[in-house]
Parts: sequence; C-alpha cells; structure tokens
Amino acid sequence: MKKVVTLGEIMLRLSTLRFERFVQAEKLAVIFSGGEANTAVSLANYGYDSCYVTKLPKNEIGQAAVNNLRKFGINTDHIVRGGDRIGIYYFETGASMRPSKVIYDRAHSAIAEAEPDDFDFDKIFQDASWFHFSGITPALGNKAIRTVEAALKAAKAKNITVSVDLNYRKNLWTPAKAQKVMTELMQYVDVCIGNEEDAHLSLGFKPGGTDVAAGELDLLGYKRIFKEMKDKFGFQYVISSLRESYSASDNRWSACAWDGKEFLHSRQYDIRIVDRVGGGDSFAAGVIYGLLEGKSFRDTLEFAAAASALKHTIHGDFNLVSIAEVENLLKGDVSGRIQR
Amino acid sequence: MKKVVTLGEIMLRLSTLRFERFVQAEKLAVIFSGGEANTAVSLANYGYDSCYVTKLPKNEIGQAAVNNLRKFGINTDHIVRGGDRIGIYYFETGASMRPSKVIYDRAHSAIAEAEPDDFDFDKIFQDASWFHFSGITPALGNKAIRTVEAALKAAKAKNITVSVDLNYRKNLWTPAKAQKVMTELMQYVDVCIGNEEDAHLSLGFKPGGTDVAAGELDLLGYKRIFKEMKDKFGFQYVISSLRESYSASDNRWSACAWDGKEFLHSRQYDIRIVDRVGGGDSFAAGVIYGLLEGKSFRDTLEFAAAASALKHTIHGDFNLVSIAEVENLLKGDVSGRIQR
Amino acid sequence: MKKVVTLGEIMLRLSTLRFERFVQAEKLAVIFSGGEANTAVSLANYGYDSCYVTKLPKNEIGQAAVNNLRKFGINTDHIVRGGDRIGIYYFETGASMRPSKVIYDRAHSAIAEAEPDDFDFDKIFQDASWFHFSGITPALGNKAIRTVEAALKAAKAKNITVSVDLNYRKNLWTPAKAQKVMTELMQYVDVCIGNEEDAHLSLGFKPGGTDVAAGELDLLGYKRIFKEMKDKFGFQYVISSLRESYSASDNRWSACAWDGKEFLHSRQYDIRIVDRVGGGDSFAAGVIYGLLEGKSFRDTLEFAAAASALKHTIHGDFNLVSIAEVENLLKGDVSGRIQR
Amino acid sequence: MKKVVTLGEIMLRLSTLRFERFVQAEKLAVIFSGGEANTAVSLANYGYDSCYVTKLPKNEIGQAAVNNLRKFGINTDHIVRGGDRIGIYYFETGASMRPSKVIYDRAHSAIAEAEPDDFDFDKIFQDASWFHFSGITPALGNKAIRTVEAALKAAKAKNITVSVDLNYRKNLWTPAKAQKVMTELMQYVDVCIGNEEDAHLSLGFKPGGTDVAAGELDLLGYKRIFKEMKDKFGFQYVISSLRESYSASDNRWSACAWDGKEFLHSRQYDIRIVDRVGGGDSFAAGVIYGLLEGKSFRDTLEFAAAASALKHTIHGDFNLVSIAEVENLLKGDVSGRIQR
Amino acid sequence: MKKVVTLGEIMLRLSTLRFERFVQAEKLAVIFSGGEANTAVSLANYGYDSCYVTKLPKNEIGQAAVNNLRKFGINTDHIVRGGDRIGIYYFETGASMRPSKVIYDRAHSAIAEAEPDDFDFDKIFQDASWFHFSGITPALGNKAIRTVEAALKAAKAKNITVSVDLNYRKNLWTPAKAQKVMTELMQYVDVCIGNEEDAHLSLGFKPGGTDVAAGELDLLGYKRIFKEMKDKFGFQYVISSLRESYSASDNRWSACAWDGKEFLHSRQYDIRIVDRVGGGDSFAAGVIYGLLEGKSFRDTLEFAAAASALKHTIHGDFNLVSIAEVENLLKGDVSGRIQR
Amino acid sequence: MKKVVTLGEIMLRLSTLRFERFVQAEKLAVIFSGGEANTAVSLANYGYDSCYVTKLPKNEIGQAAVNNLRKFGINTDHIVRGGDRIGIYYFETGASMRPSKVIYDRAHSAIAEAEPDDFDFDKIFQDASWFHFSGITPALGNKAIRTVEAALKAAKAKNITVSVDLNYRKNLWTPAKAQKVMTELMQYVDVCIGNEEDAHLSLGFKPGGTDVAAGELDLLGYKRIFKEMKDKFGFQYVISSLRESYSASDNRWSACAWDGKEFLHSRQYDIRIVDRVGGGDSFAAGVIYGLLEGKSFRDTLEFAAAASALKHTIHGDFNLVSIAEVENLLKGDVSGRIQR
Repeated sequence: MKKVVTLGEIMLRLSTLRFERFVQAEKLAVIFSGGEANTAVSLANYGYDSCYVTKLPKNEIGQAAVNNLRKFGINTDHIVRGGDRIGIYYFETGASMRPSKVIYDRAHSAIAEAEPDDFDFDKIFQDASWFHFSGITPALGNKAIRTVEAALKAAKAKNITVSVDLNYRKNLWTPAKAQKVMTELMQYVDVCIGNEEDAHLSLGFKPGGTDVAAGELDLLGYKRIFKEMKDKFGFQYVISSLRESYSASDNRWSACAWDGKEFLHSRQYDIRIVDRVGGGDSFAAGVIYGLLEGKSFRDTLEFAAAASALKHTIHGDFNLVSIAEVENLLKGDVSGRIQR
Repeated sequence: MKKVVTLGEIMLRLSTLRFERFVQAEKLAVIFSGGEANTAVSLANYGYDSCYVTKLPKNEIGQAAVNNLRKFGINTDHIVRGGDRIGIYYFETGASMRPSKVIYDRAHSAIAEAEPDDFDFDKIFQDASWFHFSGITPALGNKAIRTVEAALKAAKAKNITVSVDLNYRKNLWTPAKAQKVMTELMQYVDVCIGNEEDAHLSLGFKPGGTDVAAGELDLLGYKRIFKEMKDKFGFQYVISSLRESYSASDNRWSACAWDGKEFLHSRQYDIRIVDRVGGGDSFAAGVIYGLLEGKSFRDTLEFAAAASALKHTIHGDFNLVSIAEVENLLKGDVSGRIQR
Repeated sequence: MKKVVTLGEIMLRLSTLRFERFVQAEKLAVIFSGGEANTAVSLANYGYDSCYVTKLPKNEIGQAAVNNLRKFGINTDHIVRGGDRIGIYYFETGASMRPSKVIYDRAHSAIAEAEPDDFDFDKIFQDASWFHFSGITPALGNKAIRTVEAALKAAKAKNITVSVDLNYRKNLWTPAKAQKVMTELMQYVDVCIGNEEDAHLSLGFKPGGTDVAAGELDLLGYKRIFKEMKDKFGFQYVISSLRESYSASDNRWSACAWDGKEFLHSRQYDIRIVDRVGGGDSFAAGVIYGLLEGKSFRDTLEFAAAASALKHTIHGDFNLVSIAEVENLLKGDVSGRIQR
Repeated sequence: MKKVVTLGEIMLRLSTLRFERFVQAEKLAVIFSGGEANTAVSLANYGYDSCYVTKLPKNEIGQAAVNNLRKFGINTDHIVRGGDRIGIYYFETGASMRPSKVIYDRAHSAIAEAEPDDFDFDKIFQDASWFHFSGITPALGNKAIRTVEAALKAAKAKNITVSVDLNYRKNLWTPAKAQKVMTELMQYVDVCIGNEEDAHLSLGFKPGGTDVAAGELDLLGYKRIFKEMKDKFGFQYVISSLRESYSASDNRWSACAWDGKEFLHSRQYDIRIVDRVGGGDSFAAGVIYGLLEGKSFRDTLEFAAAASALKHTIHGDFNLVSIAEVENLLKGDVSGRIQR
Repeated sequence: MKKVVTLGEIMLRLSTLRFERFVQAEKLAVIFSGGEANTAVSLANYGYDSCYVTKLPKNEIGQAAVNNLRKFGINTDHIVRGGDRIGIYYFETGASMRPSKVIYDRAHSAIAEAEPDDFDFDKIFQDASWFHFSGITPALGNKAIRTVEAALKAAKAKNITVSVDLNYRKNLWTPAKAQKVMTELMQYVDVCIGNEEDAHLSLGFKPGGTDVAAGELDLLGYKRIFKEMKDKFGFQYVISSLRESYSASDNRWSACAWDGKEFLHSRQYDIRIVDRVGGGDSFAAGVIYGLLEGKSFRDTLEFAAAASALKHTIHGDFNLVSIAEVENLLKGDVSGRIQR
Repeated sequence: MKKVVTLGEIMLRLSTLRFERFVQAEKLAVIFSGGEANTAVSLANYGYDSCYVTKLPKNEIGQAAVNNLRKFGINTDHIVRGGDRIGIYYFETGASMRPSKVIYDRAHSAIAEAEPDDFDFDKIFQDASWFHFSGITPALGNKAIRTVEAALKAAKAKNITVSVDLNYRKNLWTPAKAQKVMTELMQYVDVCIGNEEDAHLSLGFKPGGTDVAAGELDLLGYKRIFKEMKDKFGFQYVISSLRESYSASDNRWSACAWDGKEFLHSRQYDIRIVDRVGGGDSFAAGVIYGLLEGKSFRDTLEFAAAASALKHTIHGDFNLVSIAEVENLLKGDVSGRIQR
C-alpha cells in the first residue's frame, strides 16, 4: 500500500439545500472540504495510504472534520490539533444561468496560522511515494508559505515525487504575490496541474486570446504555454482539466497534457451537474493514480478525465467513486443503465 | 427611495417536495405568493419602498404571510387584517412531459371579500411613484373590482403611473366578464403587460393562427395586436414576456414590446427550470424598474427579460436576485461558473 | 369493474435521497415495489379491481407493505401472511454518466419460500378477466415456479387472458434455467411483453447484431424475433418497450409490437428522468388496459408508451398517473405548461 | 367481519414540525383527520369492515384523503366525490405550559355543503352492526343536520346500535343551537360518550362547580349528570374519557361510565404526550370494540382507556395500535422495555 | 408606537438537529441570534418600533441576518453594513444530564471591529423611549466599549431610560476587565438585570455561599447584593431571572427584584425545555414592556417571568409569543389544553 | 495506545424517525450497530486502538458499515469482506407506555455464516490487551460458536484479559442451547457482565422472586448469584447494569458488582431517554476502560454507570461521549447548564 501525502486546509462547507439561495436557507448541509483533502479522499478510494496533513482546532467541530476524513479512509495520524477556528465557506448551488456562489470566511483558521514547526515532516514523509499540494495552501499567508516550503524540502530530501495543482484564488492573494511565491516553489515540483487561468495568474504564462469566462477552448494556446512551463521549471508533465461551462447545470469536461513529446487531449464528457466543486481535485488524484500505477501517460490522462467527470455527479467535494466505476466509464459506457 | 404600490391577493402556496405528486406528499413546503406580491418583492430587492396592499385574516397564518413579506423588505404598513381566511393554492412541480399542477382553494378569502372602504388609498398612495396591479385582482369578484377601481382613481388623482399585468385566470371568471371589466379599467393604465392569450381573453384582441399551447411564437401577430391595443387604450407601452415551453423542465424565455415606434424582441434564454411560477410577475417588476430608473426602452425590456429568466432558477414565486446579478447576466455571462 | 390479478414479489426498496451514494446515506426513503405490484398499481389507477397476490411476513414491515398497496387502491384480500422476511433492494439514483445501482437482498423472502398451496387460486381468479406475471417470479426458485404454474393452470381453466413480462434477472437464474422454465410456461401466455435482451436470455431468440448497452435500436431485428416468437408460442401479441439510454438522466422511450399482421413502432418521448424504475411495469399495465378496453392495437401501444413515459417523471416505482393525464399526453401536449 | 359505519368530516391537517410555531414553519406535515375518521381507523385496526362516509372534492387533495384512509384499511366505497373543497385545520404542537393551537379553515367544505340525498344510506347500512357519529358533524350546518338525521333514521330502521361522541365545538355553533339539535338527535342514540363540558354545552347538563380548565376531576358530578342523561334519553351507557391536563407535555388519562347500575372509574395513565389529538376518538373506538365483542362493561371501559392512552404516544390523529398492544398494556406492563 | 433601541452582536447560530451531537450532524439549522437582538424581537412582538443596531458584513449571509430580523418586525434601518464576517456559534442541544454545548467562533466579527463613528446615534435615538444593551457587547473589545459608551452618552443626552443585562461571558473577557469596564458604564443605567453570577463577575458583588451550578436559590443573598448594587450605582430597579437547573430537560424558572422598597419573588414555573437559549433576553424584554406600559413593578416582574418561561418552549432564541399568550399564562392556565 | 479487540455482528439499523410507527415511515434513519461494535466505539473514544472484527458483504452497504466504524476511529483492518448480506434490524422508538420495537432480519448474514478460518486471530490479537465479546455472537449459530472459541483460545494463548457481556437473545437461541454453549465458553472469561435475566437464561443462575419486567431491583438476589457465578467460573469480577424502566421515556439507571470481597451499588441516574439502545454496550466499555486504566473497582463501576447513563441521551447505538464528559458527570453535575 503506497503512501501519498497531501497538505492543505480543510474547511467546513455549509451548503444551502438543493438550489436554495442563501436568504432562503433554514438548514445548511455540513460537508468538510478542501482542495488537498478532496484529492486525498480519491487517493484513499484508490487503495493508497492517503495521509492528509493539516491543523484543526481542538473542539468538536475540528473533531467532526477529522471524523469525516476518517470515514473515507484517510490517514489522519498527522493532523495537528490546536489554533482558533476552522475556516468556513458558504456554498449556494446555481442552476441554469444562475451561477453557484461561494462566500469565504476562512481568515484566522488554525492551518493559516500554523507554524512549520507544528509538523514533523520527517515522520510524515516516512515511506511516502508522493506529495501533493495546491496553490491554495501557500496563498493562506506567510506562515503557510514557510510550511509548504518545509514540506517540499523534506519531500525532496526523501526523493518523493511532487505534484502541484496551481489553483489560483483571487480572494487570498494577488497575481504579483502568487507569482513571486509559486515561481520559487516550482523548483520542487515534478508534475504541474493547472488551467490557463492558473498558469497566467500564478506563474505568469499567458496563452493568448482565449476567454476562459466564455468557455472556449484554445488548445493551441495551452500547448504553447505548457511547453514554456516545462522548459522553465523542468516539470516532467504539465496537465490541465478543461471545463467548458455552458451553464451552471451543463458543462463539457475533458483534459489536455504535455509530456515533452506529445500534446494530448482526452475524450470529452457532457455532464448534467449534481455538484461540480472538487472536480479539479479529483482530476489531480486521477493523475497521481495513473502515474503511481505506471500507466501510460495517455491512459493516465484518460483515467483522470473520466474519474473527475464522474465527480460532477456526486454531492459534496469528495469523489466517491471506485476504480471499477472509472474503468467502466473508460470502456465507453455512458448509457447510465441501472446496474443490478 | 421611490415608493411603488401594488395591490392584490397573497395566498398560502402549499407545494409538494421536489417532483412528488399530491398523493405522495407527507410534507408540503410553505410559501406565500401572489402575482402582485411577487412583483413587490422584486421591487423591494431593487431598492424601492415597495408597499404591498392586501387584506389578511387576523390569525397566525395571516401573520406568517405578513412576516414572509417583511422578510424580503416589503412595506406591510397598509395590509389590512380581518376576514375569514387566506386563499390557498396547492402546487405540484412537473418534470419533463408531466406538467406542473395548481389546485386553487381561494374562494372566500379576506381580500376577495374586502370592501373598498377597508383601504385608505389616499394615504397608501402618498408620495408614491407607481401603481401596479394584475388582472387577477378584479377577477376575485365584484367587491374586488370596486376596490381596484377605487385604487386606480386614487392613483390617477395623484398622477401616479399605472401598470397592469393582464394575467387572465380562467378559474376566476369568463372571457366575457373579464373583457367587460378589464376594458373599463384600461382607461387608467399607462403600461400594459400581457401575452397574446391574456390579450385575447381579457381584452378581446386575437392575433391569429398562433397555437400558444404548442409554444410557437408569432411575433408578427404580437406586433399587430400590440399596435391595436395601444391605439384603443392609449397605453404608453405594450409589453409581453414570451415563453416557449418545450417541457416542464425546459423553456425558452424572451420578451417583446411596442412603444409606438419600434417593435422590440429581447435576447432569448434557454432555461433548465427550478420553479417557473412567478416568472411573469418578476418580468413586470423588471419593466417597472427600467422605466422608473429612466433606462431606454430597449434596456428596460432586456433587464426585465434577464431578471425574469433568472427567476426560473429559484425556488418559490419570489425572484430573489439583485440588480448586480441581473446586470451580470445582461453582460452575457451565462456560463454559470462558480462565483467565489 | 373488471378484475385483474397479478402475482409476484413485492420488496422493500430503500433508496438514497436525491443523487446520494450509498456511503453518504444518513436516511433511506422507504418504498415498496416489485414488477407485478407496480403493474397492479397502474391497473388500480385505471379503475380496475386490481388484485395483487403475494406472501408477506406477519410483522409490521409486512403490514407496511400491505398498507402501501392499499393506499393506491390495490385489492390485498389474497395476500398471504407468513414466512421469515420481506425481500429488500437498495437503490442509488444515478446521474449523467453515473448509472443507478441496485443491490438485492431478496433471498429467503416469504414469497420465494411460499408453497403453491399457500394460495387458493380458484378463489383468487373468481370473476377475473386477466392474469399478469413477470419472469422475475419463477426466477425466485423452484417453489415459485410451481406456484406460477398452479396460477397459470387455474387461470387458463377459467379462460382468463394471460400476459407475461419476460423481465430476465441475471442475479436470480442463468439463461439455461430461465429458457427451460419460461419455454414451458409460455404455453399459457396470450400476450408476451419483453425486449430483445429478455427474448434472448429468457427464451433464446437472438435478433442479431444490436448492442443493447449502446442504446441503438434494431427495429428489423425486433420484427424478426417477434414473428418467430409468435409462431413458436402462439402468442396473440408480442410487444416491447424500447429504451435508448443516453445517460442516467436522459432517455428516449418508445415501444414496438407485432400482432401477426403489422409491425408497429410508437411515438418517441425524450425524457428527463426523475425515476426510471417501474417504467416497464407501467408499460405492461398500459398494454393490459388498452386490450381490456377494446382499443385498437395501435392505440393500445401508444397508450402504453405514453403512460410509461410519464412514469419516468415520478418518484418511486408506481406510475401515479390517471387515464386523463395519459390521454392529455397522447393528444400531443408535451409543453409541460402549468395546469391550473 | 362485522361492519361499522361512521359519518363525518375529514380535514386536511397541516401541522408544524416538532414544536415549531406557525410563523416559523417552512414545511407543514400533511395528515388527514376528523373525529369519526379517527374512530374508523381504530375500528379497522381491530379487524372490522370499517366503512367511513363523507364527501370529498373531486381533485387530487380529495384523492389523497381517500388514499390515506385506504392505507389504514378503511372501506371508502361510500365516500361521495364532489363539492368545492376539503376543510383544513392548522395545528401547532404545544409544549410545557404553551398550549397546542388549532386554526380552523373548514367553512364551505364538501361535506358541510353535502345534501342528504348525496348518500344512499340504505346501501351504506346494509349488514352493518354499529353506527357512530360525533357532535361535530351536525355542527357543520343545517344540511349536515339533515344528513345526520337521515343516517340515524336509516340506521334505526335496521336496528343498528348507535353511538355518539358529543364533542362540542364552540367555533361551529352556540350552546343554544347545539342543545336544540343534539337533544333531538339523542332519541336515536344507544351509547353516549362525552365529558362534562360536552354534556353541559351540547345537552345542557351541568355537573356543578368543577373547573375543567384547571384539570380537576369531579367524579361525583359526573355520576350525577350521567344518571340524569341516561334517565332523560334512555341511553344504554353514558361514558366519558377523563383528561387531567398538567401541561401540554404531561396529562393524566382515565375514563368513567355509568351503565345504570354502577359508576365505574378506570385505571389512570400518566402520559408524556407525543400527539394528543384524536385521543377521544380512539376512546370511542375502544368502547365500540368492547361492546361489539361482548366484553364486560368494565373490561370495555378499561380497553377503551388503555387504547386511547396509547394514542397519545403516536403522531397524527389515528390510533395506530393493535389489539395485542392494548392488551399488553392492560396486563399492566407500562415499563416500555424494548420488545425484540 | 414607542421606539426602543437595542445595540449588540447578532450571530449565525448553527444548531445540530434535535439532540444530535456535533460529530453526528449532517445538517445544521440556521438561526440568527444575539442577546440584544433576541430582546428586540420580543419588543417588536409587543408592538414597539424595535430598532436594533449592529454591523453586519455586506454579503448574503449578512443579508440573511437582516432578513431574519425584518421577518419578526425589527426596524433594521440603522444596521450598518461592512466588515469581514458575521460571528458564529455552534449549538448542540443537550438532554437529561448531558448539557447543551456552545462553541463560539465570533472573533473578528463586523460588530466587534466596528468603530463608534460607524453609527449615527443622534439619529438612532431620535424619538426613542428606551435603550437596552447587555454586558456581552462591551466584552467584544475596546472598539465595542467605545461604541457602547457613545451610545449611552447619546441616549442619556436625550433622557432615554437605559437598561442593561449584565450577562457575563467568560470567553470574552476576565472578571477584572469586566468589572473595570462595567462599573464605568453603570453610571448611565437605570434598570439593571443580572443574576448573582453576573453581579459577581461583572460588578464584583458576591452574595455568599450559594452554588449556582447546583441550582440552589439563595434569595437572601440576592436581596443583599441587590440593595448594595442599587446603593452604589443608583439603579432604579435591580432584577434577576432565577433558573434552577434540574437537568438539561427540566428547569424551574422564576424571577426576583428589588425596587428600593420591597424584595419581590415571582411565581415559579416548572418547564420541560424545548430550547432555553434566549430565556434571559426575553426576560429583559418583559421587564422593559412592563415598565414602558406603566404596569406596577410586581406586575412587570410577573409578566417578565411568564413571558420568559414561555420562551423555553420555543425553538430558537427568539421569544415568539404575543402579549395575549403571556397574559393567558399569567391568569394561571398552565394546563396546555388545545386552543381551538 | 493500548489495543482492545472486539468480535461480533454489526447490523444495519433502520429506525423510524422520532416516535413514528413502522407503518408511518416514509424514511428510515440509517445507523450501523451491534453489541461489540458499540462497545468498540466507546473504547475508541477513550483513546484505545479499538480493533473490531467481523465479516461484511463486499458491496456498498458493507462498505458503508466499514466507513461508519472508521468515522468513529475504529481500527477496521481485520474486518473480513464477503458473504451474502449484512443483518438488519428495524427499530421503532417508543414513548411513554408504548415500548420501542425491534424487528430482526439477521439470518444468513455474512458474520453468521463466516468460518473460523476467515479470521487470522494470531495477527488480530498481536499486541492486544483485552478481548471482549457478547453472548449474541455465539448465538448466531454453530459456525459463530466455533469462531468465538477460536478467538478465545487465541486470546488466552496470549494472556489477554477477556470480558463477556452475556446478553441473552431469545430470538437467536433457547436457554438450553445458550447455557450449554455459554457455560463452556466461560472458562476463558475474566470479567463477566450481565443482568439477572442474562445470568438466568444464559448460565442458569436464578436469583429468585424478582420481576424484571416490573422494573424492581432485587440487589440481594444479585449479590447471591454473583457470588455463585464467581465461584463456579472463577471470574475476577461479576458486574451488571441495572435498569428500572418506568416507561419508554423515563428510566432509572445504575450498576452493581461483586469483586469477591464487596458488593457495590453505584450512584443512580434518572434519565429522560433519547435512545436507550446500546446502553449496556457502553457500560461494558466503561468497565473495560476503568480496569485497563487501573482505576479502583468502585471508580470503575461509577465510571461505567455514568458513561452509560449519558449514552441514553444520544441518538444511535454509539456512546459519543468523551472521558471529560463522563468525568464531569461523575463530579456530580447533572444540572445540564449550557457549556459555553
């Protein structure tokens, strides 16, 4: 059982019930979620010792987050307890042309205020095969940047493969700050995942005239910046999921990648959305799975695209699908016929 | 803060939960709703002193209706309390080719049995800029006709702009009675809103061979009757929302209008429906907003069409969207991408 | 009031709430369902004395099943009480490319272990006009085969029309066993309902190169095997509903039939699915209704197709629609406009 | 299977969820309930052909009422369909010193406006052993009085035993009107059930200084008026349940009766209330069961008291308990130990 | 309509559903609540222009708080919008010997970080008759202390009566800090409300050997410190509610007071608790109502005790009872008999 | 972190919602529960490596059971996957004099049909300090008896302390069979837990005239049989929880024990019940905790009694309380005051 380590913030997600607006809510659904935690759950589903590292307050809400991670098979042994609060995000599910909305209340969270010394990375990375983090974590603040750096150095010292999901968050930092920090951190990264918006805002690579908001794909632009990114940072792979947003209810989903030789574009999935949050995180997990299992790079990309397409049909941020379910979709069965 | 007055019936809407049929219902969702009340809520959202006038029984169910209106910022100071009961309508949400169903139980309601003297219209219209009512209110009975007349005279005496939403209701009166009453009331109206079915049944204007049930648009027919209506009644504007019903789940939505010079047709929206009740009421509110704010007539029409398209994505009859959200849609963003 | 008898297993269906996966479920919706029971509910809706025969344990869960059938107007006078347990199936609703899942826990149920002598078929079939069963019932085991045989002999002795829905269930028996048993039982059958998969696995008729999983229709293949089946077994009619599964959310639905003279294909319905379980059972009920009422065979087929299309828009396995609602759809109104 | 007939109004009960006040309600629980219907459900539970007679509107809400009665085994063959609406009552569950609240909206209901000719009492009472009604039914209006009279005459013509539950409703009529009508109807009654408040307001018998609101029992007063009532009307039995209301959460419950020879007082039950509505109706059913089964009068009284005590532990107005459960309580087991 | 002003923090209360523990919660009930807001709702129920002053973030969660206050008739015209977040408290309802639990996450809230200049107290107190605040507000921090001081000075400049509910919160400040601040603020206060724990920790008055945790009442101790408090600060009245906690499910509730002449102890109420949060806040509202209406001091105390006893039977922090309901309880009716 | 091993059956518990009867249920709450699993959860709460051993089917329902155990910190590494089904029990919560009801559907479960060889007890007991099982496990059948024997032998071979909770289940075996099997197994047991009913039916010790159903305690009888049991089997301790059932809503709870020198009776707790299932299992966990931590036997007994009293206030079978919460209750605080 290979060990994969992820590090980041897990938040309390408070969602209105099916299509309710915030001002209508009498109850909020409780989910715990965060980029790296979402990836970690997928990796646990795929059979790994998925070790998720964060800091959570020593109260029952923090405990509920831990319990929720344990439920889905996460190794929570290295979650540090302490600090003032768990970050929160409020989530309202959109429909048709009404977009979903996220309101963040994450400042002052335990993980944002954690010190690098809170974590024993030497022990955490013992026997680990992979380390994954996202651009959200360093965006939490200077302490978090130092924590991520410490983790990356410890991982590299043990020759552990490192992946990043660039995931630019405009509420947390500016492009200038992001580019300064992320450029520095990229030296430790082997596999870089991120769409063109992320590449632009986090690393300064601009593909050209594509309008991401309009949902048009500029595959040539992707190919160009992926090459540039690989050249600059020495990534082994540069990969992106591709979302074409027709509306809050319907998306087209695929992925593209550059391995230094070939620019690949995966099969495309037309999706009626149940919950699209966590789609990118489950894509990262699919990439990690494919590479850890020694699949071909094309098969890896297709697995990641199919797995993350399925995510969109599941409530919550966690991608609760099995390898068998992904493989069934990879075989081409999109008929949705009842499985008895 | 401009004051806008609306007058009509608010009912207790008892809805089955998501797609349940009446005979399956163990619980019913409680909403309070009515044409003019729905319009009033939109107007409150747009920042007006939205004064809604009705009569409600002096019990806790009547109070719950008042509370619900207050919640969304309605001025309820002129709601009269008394009478026997609040009207009720039962609502079952359809899906695909199964239509939604409404069962009315509204006879003998407090507002239907109210006398014109119950309302102090002189005080109600003090400092008001606009008065809006729908064809449903006079359809409630002879007392209600006299109440509407009294309101219209009081409004006109103060030079207040008057709009009507024709809204023919076949359960409440016959075309003959409707045409007799509505023709009389139109002398007070400046802005007339209503689709071809309403124009035909409430006012006797028949556009020709269009089959409304089949969802085909006959824009030429609209243009012709709009001209005739304006000529006959001296309306400033004649306006209609346009619904093409592909199924209970999918509609196309737009609007058309005649201002005496130009026949306009708005942008069209393809909608996955969450709840279509109140679509027309929110359209009327958009028209009033545009004209009160001095927007161009085209901008007014587009605002109203976009605002009411958004209504279809929201549970309940109230259009809980802000000006900013409508304007975002007007800018063309239908991608539904998560707003963080 | 004509009497129609159906015989089979009714199970406790435990469904996750809207789109939840099994591991997410905190509550399960309780429905009672089974092929013949579903058909029986439709027949009760159509005004028949719909007599459903089964065996249920003498505890409150068995009683809840009886109550649920009574609620929808079923004659439960001939339900035998006893045995160890009611069968269960767990149901997870799919979405988009994620299929719905059924997990059966039906072994050792009261009806599977019932003896033919538990039922007084002479009394059960008194004054009955029709007997319907499905291939699921004999698949429950050897006792059930003998029970079905006893029922068929009793029905035929009274000259009652017999219909079967072939309904092959791979979890319950093998094609070899199914073909041996079903071939024997077909001698009693007048009306045979079943798609090409059923025809192949239950009776050994293979239409050719069609790939059912891919959702392609091979109408010519259907025509050929329907002729062969009629020739071999002397059926009066051979009929099938036709499902084209685009995804778990969207299906196209129609029906085809052979009456010895003409091969008919019904109108097609594009459906946004609420719950597709019971679609075939409601189709069988539509066929029985049309034939019992003396409709033309084409009208019968169209009624059955429309009725079962509507089923897909209703939660649960029961098709809670009235004749009037089916007829409204038959008139071509798919607009889903609100019925006030 | 003995046939018992009851006649009255069944209403849609809309209850707030556990302890919510009306103004807090976002959902209302749907129950169908009415004095005689509640009694009828108990009688169906006890194994009788329990035939409930009323009139309900010909829409889906009326159908839901019928379905709900059928679910619990009621014979609904003689329910007439037509009229404008089903009566409604809103119900808010109290707690501790906060009383439960009922708001009626029952005027103009189908049964209140039904004519005696709507019902074929000759057919209804065919083979019947017992007829039960309550004072609520004639209180619905003059048409209802004539309907009850017609029923009583038809019952007496067939020598059917008649019971009444006096059940005075101050919202429906005055004591003067009640006494005039009820005094007339008592000539047909064999078994009279009603507490001292009912006896006073419906029939004019006042026991003396007891303060019902204070929950004190005046058994001597009961004994005196029961004797007077029996003397005046020739009742076979005069019976009352006895409620001592400590609070909305805790009641003491028992019963007393006079059979012409002995004044009996049953065992007393201290109850933590789940839902007390329908307690009296289930008591009447217990009385009818005991007398129909030929139990001694003391055993009848104890059965009725125990059965109706259990009612208080069940949600809704229907007493969903079996004979075995009542008998278990009668044996003295109040321990509430889990029954495995 | 008299105007009453309150000032304080309103929080988002996230409650587990009935008796669930935090780690079990899949959904949280959404309530908005805070000491002074709770008092303000009662005052709106009693018919006053109840003006609640606070600062809330300019997002939809802040808007939901405003809407919730409006729903219950609060004047929200002077709520300032801005700042980072709304404070949160998580609430778990206890039962029997398991206490209820509150977890606060209120640091950095908009009101805690508001400046005195955010509020135009001159306008706020225009035409006001009363100002009420609690010890929680100054405990929010130094900015809040200055805001309260500014409010108190403005109120006193207009000769407005001032009441305080001492309400010591150990999570927000130390006794030393509290006593320093509160002693200073008491110069503006006319009516002081607070139990012995509050008096001790907020103002330094210790009654003696009573053990509040054990729920024993030491009325003599109360009398002594009330005298001392009145002497020191020149209060007109010193008043306290009295809670005897037998368990999380059962409390005894009463009140005592000193008006300079007489030490009064109210009637006692034994309560089965639905939700005890907000009990003290509703008591303060009862005191304000009695004094504003010119009731005798004993009647005021009894009204406040009865009103706040009823609060314990209502979900949420708001005391949703009418004057009539309190007066009914004051008449002595604790029977909880259904009010029809 | 000490390791404690438990072995037994975990079932799917399907509970009606708060006080609903089975025939009323539209939804069932999903809990996974079983005697030893319940004990295991408490032990995980107390900080042990709580290793629960069972066999569960290899489907999503089995996985949901595993996830649920993981959520609460159980070590599930030794749960074997396979077999046909998970056992089920239906649960209806009683109230007042209406008892709770359990309907079992557990035959043919994976664990009942597991073979001893399915489990590698040598590995399971590695480094373990304690082994606990209940009388329910051998009652599952002859295979289960052999599995328990194998476990006991393996545990004893490693000198692991063994405890049993006798837990007689009349639905699973007869007293004769139970006594034969259990007498044999007692040779391996150090700590015996069980009430007098269990002692009588499982081991043949009858204390005398006590009537358990009546809820009377016969402490002398307990003392006598505890001595006899210790003498016969050489137990170190004989212990029982003591339940006095006043009703389904109110119980008194305590415990007694014999250590060879002293007969101890713990403090008594009067409990308003939320959910009493699992009370005994949490008591066993308290005993194990006390003894493993080296507490005095009296302190152990009091801890176990207090911990299990708290269980009754928690939904579900798991005792979700912390050591700190138990200790707070042990200090005598039953006031239930809100903990902020």
